[in-house]
Amino acid sequence: MGDLLIREGTILSMVAGEEPLRGDIAVRDDRILAVGVAGAVPADFRPSRTVEAGGHLVLPGLINTHSHAAMNLLRGYADDLPLMPWLTERIFPVEARLTGDDVYWGTGLAILEMIASGTTCFADMYFFMDRVAQMVEDAGMRAFLSRGLIGGAPNGAEALAEGLALAEAWQGRGDGRITVMLGPHAPYTCPPAYLERVVAAAQELGLGIHIHLAETAGEGEEIRRLYGRSPVAHLERLGVFDVPALAAHCVHLDAADIGILAEKGVGVAHNPVSNLKLGSGIAPLLALRRAGVAVGLGSDGAASTNTLDLFQEIKLAAWLAKGTSGDPAAFGARQALELATVGGAAVLGRAGELGQVRPGFLADLIVLSTDRPHLTPAHDLYSLAAYAATGGDVETVIIAGRVVYSGGEYHTLDRERILREGRTRAAALVGNG
Amino acid sequence: MGDLLIREGTILSMVAGEEPLRGDIAVRDDRILAVGVAGAVPADFRPSRTVEAGGHLVLPGLINTHSHAAMNLLRGYADDLPLMPWLTERIFPVEARLTGDDVYWGTGLAILEMIASGTTCFADMYFFMDRVAQMVEDAGMRAFLSRGLIGGAPNGAEALAEGLALAEAWQGRGDGRITVMLGPHAPYTCPPAYLERVVAAAQELGLGIHIHLAETAGEGEEIRRLYGRSPVAHLERLGVFDVPALAAHCVHLDAADIGILAEKGVGVAHNPVSNLKLGSGIAPLLALRRAGVAVGLGSDGAASTNTLDLFQEIKLAAWLAKGTSGDPAAFGARQALELATVGGAAVLGRAGELGQVRPGFLADLIVLSTDRPHLTPAHDLYSLAAYAATGGDVETVIIAGRVVYSGGEYHTLDRERILREGRTRAAALVGNG
Repeated sequence: MGDLLIREGTILSMVAGEEPLRGDIAVRDDRILAVGVAGAVPADFRPSRTVEAGGHLVLPGLINTHSHAAMNLLRGYADDLPLMPWLTERIFPVEARLTGDDVYWGTGLAILEMIASGTTCFADMYFFMDRVAQMVEDAGMRAFLSRGLIGGAPNGAEALAEGLALAEAWQGRGDGRITVMLGPHAPYTCPPAYLERVVAAAQELGLGIHIHLAETAGEGEEIRRLYGRSPVAHLERLGVFDVPALAAHCVHLDAADIGILAEKGVGVAHNPVSNLKLGSGIAPLLALRRAGVAVGLGSDGAASTNTLDLFQEIKLAAWLAKGTSGDPAAFGARQALELATVGGAAVLGRAGELGQVRPGFLADLIVLSTDRPHLTPAHDLYSLAAYAATGGDVETVIIAGRVVYSGGEYHTLDRERILREGRTRAAALVGNG
Repeated sequence: MGDLLIREGTILSMVAGEEPLRGDIAVRDDRILAVGVAGAVPADFRPSRTVEAGGHLVLPGLINTHSHAAMNLLRGYADDLPLMPWLTERIFPVEARLTGDDVYWGTGLAILEMIASGTTCFADMYFFMDRVAQMVEDAGMRAFLSRGLIGGAPNGAEALAEGLALAEAWQGRGDGRITVMLGPHAPYTCPPAYLERVVAAAQELGLGIHIHLAETAGEGEEIRRLYGRSPVAHLERLGVFDVPALAAHCVHLDAADIGILAEKGVGVAHNPVSNLKLGSGIAPLLALRRAGVAVGLGSDGAASTNTLDLFQEIKLAAWLAKGTSGDPAAFGARQALELATVGGAAVLGRAGELGQVRPGFLADLIVLSTDRPHLTPAHDLYSLAAYAATGGDVETVIIAGRVVYSGGEYHTLDRERILREGRTRAAALVGNG
């Protein structure tokens, strides 16, 4: 891909202890070569392309640690319903009709939305994941992909075979932008013996595990009734946390659960909008962080959360931490941005190369235009980015050193084709097509 | 102003019982003349201007029922601090230095932001309100303005005189777009005798009252200690609710308080972002609505909430109603949009002419572009507008029949001048200028 220079950005590097910095970023191939004021970039650096940041904010690309991208096809299809009718009357019947092509184009819709709102990497769990992987490759996106496994369903064994085949076919593809994980759906949908089979496979192939965990109070009651322990303790006992694990939601936890997550190094995907909007509850973000648990942010699917804009999750995570503690100083703007950057990288086991603007790190970067009324004045740049900016302020998106979006234009995706396919397929799926 | 036609909109009229409607809206001077499918608009209607809505969403302009607009100058200046240091170390010292010109340009910043995010009317409380009124008139905005009165301060009497002078000078100005109210700050800053004087003046001049009420638990404790009753009961006893009253926040209420607000027809400005972010609490939206209290949405000032985008308040109001009740069906997308439209109109005593797209109503209208990845597909239009749209999707804004904003351009305000003045003044105020 050659050399890329981002000139004159106001860089929020998210490197611990580093203050905002006005300067340039040199990118070679898919990595950051140098960051800094005049002189930091080598004199012999001859970029084939230059992005003029013009003093605007440059941040690491945001990391969405829990999504079901293709569910963008169902955005707004089943809002304001209780959980069971939502699932059984709306979502499941439509999902049963989804084809691989639907998933391909639905994922395209989600990636259009994610890129335009500053997300450069996502951790996804769904089915027809080979088609998701294909769209990720086509888009130049970075993703952690897992075939969702309902162990208790008739196709449980077949789904696991698909998950393993996905790893075989796609691990490391897209110049390393694609990582495959195994995706046992949840403790309440996967029997213990099944989870043990998944863990054994993950260990054998060196794969991580992505699972829903402790999302609702009902899940906790059911797992305790069946197995005599909390969902977290149950998974620990089955060895799920002996491989790198990403646990989505983690709303209903007690102190012992938090201790287990910390001790086993389990990464948590915090999905504040989905949890609040579905009435599931509010995850104990402050307690998780005090215990040293790595926490990232997730959007969940658009059928529940409606949009994939991580800036919305950043804001709500901070507001809820303040609101539930009654202490506006309990959680700050910089910490909220950390959730979506360094936190997300840690949750995905990539703290050493993702989520910071730093030499040697992968060149996933976003530029936010600040020349807007709602971003004026700029007393505090972290505050501006966390509490005032939205996905709509993203001007330029770079993934693995490649400019995939700038000035409202996508450079890897056919926006009109994807929107058209999305509309047509969405209408057909719900019987209006 | 002549005649204006909005052609081929997908109209969410917010009229009770009315479904989304594809059609035209005819506007004569500052009012809606006709709404509907082909034929509803009189054949002899010859618009001097036409807005092509192209199937995009048309809604009533959003109503912000509680703001301190000029505080846009302090956006992000004092985030993540406990309330008292926030006020005494940051906000008060800067406010003591504010000039009338600062307030004029700071209000301009806020109006730029409000218009671009679809707000066409706001209820504001601050000082140098004649300068706020001037900016409102210049902008072609609609506003309900009150001089904030700290009754217990040395300038309490002087401030009330200013509030009355504001009414004298500005009531009904801007072709009726400006309404003046009296603004006693709060029960804990205005002694009983002062509140009685304000009520007497309001009754004499036929003015409404805008007041902060029951914002924090501490306020409730203090008022109970001093006067032996809740803040709501205290104000009722002083006659504050015997004039049209707009009470902002109303977070800490018991059942008797809610009964009083319902019986006296007090309008409530719900400020979900501000209350959560400052750790004040969560207002009992569902209980207020069950009791029949009119509820609108407020942004509060940008020094606490950071942005004035009412779509953010719409979302959070719905999420919190669902999340706190544990019932995703407890509050829906259409109801959430009602808060910002018909609810806001009712809170301001203008339910008969604001907040709906309806013949005879004031022509305050917004067009939302839906040709965007995050608004595709469109299974449910209310859901799309409430849960997925943001202020950034607003394409056209009409206030009192006049197009004040379209395609990113302001037609009444000098965007660059206001941004420049805002930046310079903000920096000078905090000592960096």
